[in-house]
Amino acid sequence: MKATFMYGAGDVRVETVPDPVIQSPTDAIVRTVRTCVCGSDLHPYHSMAASEHGTSMGHELIAIVEEVGSAVTTVKPGDFVVAPFAFQDNTCVFCREGVQTACIHGGWYGTPAAAGLQAEFARIPQADGSLVVVPGVDPADADESLLASLLTLSDVYLTGYHAAHMGQVGPGKTVTVVGDGAVGLGAVLASRRFRAGRIILMGRHTDRTDLGVEFGATDVVAERGEDGIARVMDLTDGEGSHIVLEAVGHLPAYEQAYGIVRPGGIISRVGVPQYEDAPIGFGSLFGKNARLAGGPAPVRAYLEPAIQQVLNGEIDPGRVFDRTVALDDIATGYAAMDAREALKVMVTV
Amino acid sequence: MKATFMYGAGDVRVETVPDPVIQSPTDAIVRTVRTCVCGSDLHPYHSMAASEHGTSMGHELIAIVEEVGSAVTTVKPGDFVVAPFAFQDNTCVFCREGVQTACIHGGWYGTPAAAGLQAEFARIPQADGSLVVVPGVDPADADESLLASLLTLSDVYLTGYHAAHMGQVGPGKTVTVVGDGAVGLGAVLASRRFRAGRIILMGRHTDRTDLGVEFGATDVVAERGEDGIARVMDLTDGEGSHIVLEAVGHLPAYEQAYGIVRPGGIISRVGVPQYEDAPIGFGSLFGKNARLAGGPAPVRAYLEPAIQQVLNGEIDPGRVFDRTVALDDIATGYAAMDAREALKVMVTV
Repeated sequence: MKATFMYGAGDVRVETVPDPVIQSPTDAIVRTVRTCVCGSDLHPYHSMAASEHGTSMGHELIAIVEEVGSAVTTVKPGDFVVAPFAFQDNTCVFCREGVQTACIHGGWYGTPAAAGLQAEFARIPQADGSLVVVPGVDPADADESLLASLLTLSDVYLTGYHAAHMGQVGPGKTVTVVGDGAVGLGAVLASRRFRAGRIILMGRHTDRTDLGVEFGATDVVAERGEDGIARVMDLTDGEGSHIVLEAVGHLPAYEQAYGIVRPGGIISRVGVPQYEDAPIGFGSLFGKNARLAGGPAPVRAYLEPAIQQVLNGEIDPGRVFDRTVALDDIATGYAAMDAREALKVMVTV
Repeated sequence: MKATFMYGAGDVRVETVPDPVIQSPTDAIVRTVRTCVCGSDLHPYHSMAASEHGTSMGHELIAIVEEVGSAVTTVKPGDFVVAPFAFQDNTCVFCREGVQTACIHGGWYGTPAAAGLQAEFARIPQADGSLVVVPGVDPADADESLLASLLTLSDVYLTGYHAAHMGQVGPGKTVTVVGDGAVGLGAVLASRRFRAGRIILMGRHTDRTDLGVEFGATDVVAERGEDGIARVMDLTDGEGSHIVLEAVGHLPAYEQAYGIVRPGGIISRVGVPQYEDAPIGFGSLFGKNARLAGGPAPVRAYLEPAIQQVLNGEIDPGRVFDRTVALDDIATGYAAMDAREALKVMVTV
């Protein structure tokens, strides 16, 4: 089969590799319907050291089940499924507590434990916990917009949803979303569903922020840094934002977040931090009793109701996709997202 | 009157200064019944650069109202009151949201806005929001243990309570308290009142941890650093603690906290951070969706019910006081706490 590998910053290649096979009774093999390129894939696209050994890429997938291991009971060949961006058994103590991304038997795609999902086929470990059937949909007949929305449930929309959920977004709250990428726009959409009173979107790309306004943003702030902080403080009568959803992962976005969060407010991060140390002392978080939440979204926890909402037409998060490329051309998709020419690139196989 | 000043690390002096006077219609002047030395006073006691100008010290107080400004309506001369360690109007938008330590008209004692409270008299700004009457108690006749418990409501017990409250301590939860000072012991007592299932106290001073056990600690861990982390992980079947209450303020205590917090768990800090930057990236907080909460306790928010609990004999947080000195001898109190010979030093005037 064909699969995607990164050999260093800016160096993405599609190569032919052996088809995956069942390795454990809890595995499933699935055939890709759609996969995509993630904003988090751009971090190594910028910084990965060149290597002779490619890293297997991709973690977002809707697919058809081809084959299941002998212990798999909840999916069968022919099922149309969504795969959360991490795998998990969905039964361990941390899964039961709603932190499936910390599953004792879980892990990440594109690692020695499981190959990446930007490929024609994939091996899904812990298939019973890691695949959720989309009932009543045949992807061969399905509308492209439906497939797009289902694909966002693999990661970006439910990552934005996780940010809003952990940020305790609720009626009447002022929410500021830092970042106008697909996750940030998902956070806007989720905040509207949580009935936030005001949703300020910080972003500089008008095509993206325009979609953010359609998703529910009430204000758009294009400024960054100190100017961005001043603008949000001005919009909030100098009080700051009850909740800040940080959907970037770079330190300046976090600095923006603690600059605008209100005393007693919550910063909820879902952008994968590209830093380890950051300010949390008296001058940033502690002095104003600001709270910090977030992490890799336990998409599995939110997946069944979200599938129903997509099928019912209640949400249309798939609108974040603005380009589609064939797997063979995925390198052009990375380049387009990196150049901000595309917001989110879907991949067909 | 006599008042306490610090001139540099280890240099605490009692000096005679003019009595305070009403400066604003919202002020009150109070006469000290008891004040005390705080663990947070030990931070400058270690690190303050020597200066010709002393810094006014102290922020914990029970007192009798002597005089009130023309705008003060809730207290009158003769009232016996508790003063939270910060002053606030208790009416501004942040006070109404329960973050009184971020009051728009509030501030700290021992600053240009208000002198420190380790003194015979004090000026209390925003007296209506900053003094709470203890009903039915004449301090001249009161039991010393009652006065001690009331004095802890000015800061240490309710700071420990704030840690537990922001940590969302509840029935069945495993709580680990880092630090066996008066705030840590208060956090143990508060966790018991929130019906935590298990309370692990990390501390090395057996006289303190013994009191912690009486307050409700179910386990004591004397080890620190990697050994301490390993011990708590062992006690929690390798899963970690749902909630970690950090009552120290030094970086190693925070490192301990993220080392033992469970995926999805909460670190609640009330030790004043002696650092600004600290790890919060994938390897510390983000990867396991651990949350960070805490800050200067909005004691005012919790004060009325706590006074009733003390008066009813439901809680006895005053047991943390193990030494009493006269104001003239307060320097010996600082030295005794610094040397860990005393847990918490009460000061009479």
